[in-house]
Amino acid sequence: MARWQPGTRGRLQDAALDLFVSRGYEQTTAADIAAAVGLTERTFFRHFADKREVLFDGQEMLGAAFLRGIDESPDGATPWELIEAAIASAATVFTDEMRPRSRRRQTVIDQHSALQEREQHKMSHVAAEIRDALHARGVEETAARLAAESASTAFAVAFAQWLRDGEERPLTEIASAVLAELRRLATPAG
Amino acid sequence: MARWQPGTRGRLQDAALDLFVSRGYEQTTAADIAAAVGLTERTFFRHFADKREVLFDGQEMLGAAFLRGIDESPDGATPWELIEAAIASAATVFTDEMRPRSRRRQTVIDQHSALQEREQHKMSHVAAEIRDALHARGVEETAARLAAESASTAFAVAFAQWLRDGEERPLTEIASAVLAELRRLATPAG
Repeated sequence: MARWQPGTRGRLQDAALDLFVSRGYEQTTAADIAAAVGLTERTFFRHFADKREVLFDGQEMLGAAFLRGIDESPDGATPWELIEAAIASAATVFTDEMRPRSRRRQTVIDQHSALQEREQHKMSHVAAEIRDALHARGVEETAARLAAESASTAFAVAFAQWLRDGEERPLTEIASAVLAELRRLATPAG
Repeated sequence: MARWQPGTRGRLQDAALDLFVSRGYEQTTAADIAAAVGLTERTFFRHFADKREVLFDGQEMLGAAFLRGIDESPDGATPWELIEAAIASAATVFTDEMRPRSRRRQTVIDQHSALQEREQHKMSHVAAEIRDALHARGVEETAARLAAESASTAFAVAFAQWLRDGEERPLTEIASAVLAELRRLATPAG
């Protein structure tokens, strides 16, 4: 199975996840993680601020991917088209070979409310970046905020579905289905 | 101006907010808050688990209000109608006379990322309750999750707008405008 990320960072991330799952998040120190891959604690801290951040590294990439989708949209795209593009771009970050690792990461996060709070906080930062990008595209402020928050919400719902046991569809497909569902939800009947 | 909540709890909440704003959140202890209204620290802890929870008391009421809106909806209501009712019900929790207090609370929260994380976590708990209520109404699981998260998102966007300087519309009106905006966003053009 491919590494989450090659090199030292990726090895530290894999080792951290192994330890968080087998020994427990609280019981694992940065020194333990470093030692597991034959590195010093000092090397660990060159890569990550603390053991918690090992779990949240991907969210920087994710934020950048959302923005790329907006950047690459043609002039005149509607707010909906912009968030569709943002979500489609973000969904490509998580390939199928990353799914087992993402599932294990999620089990760690699900067990610690402080980690859940951290994750939500990071996602709200991503939503603020999307909002600013939409606003820069001429979308009015409240509409931009709502569209950005809805994009982040739809992505989170799709991501949770992608992680479920037995789910085999790629994230891109699930994300697109969730957006269609949102459209159906909001479209007046008749 | 009316109290947020009458009685000892309300007095402790008002005093806490005054101290958080004037002295700073970190610099204020539970004992300080109690002393400000002539009570002992022990009394404080009969009402709140810690000084942080003073700020999040309202979110219990808010969650209950969302659910009430769903409960009171007629059989056969669509998912959209259910979240409209949930949001309308939740919006009535925050009356105009509470706005100055809510604005001050928000300035405290905006200054501390740990408080923001706490707020997001509580809101995601509310969203999970809405999701379960929708699911119990027969809405399919992913649709229920998406609708619940969208309701929570729309409410948060409306609430942030309600707090803005110069905004004078009641929350019920803003919330209804935000839902209309979400519908406009998601409805295919043409």
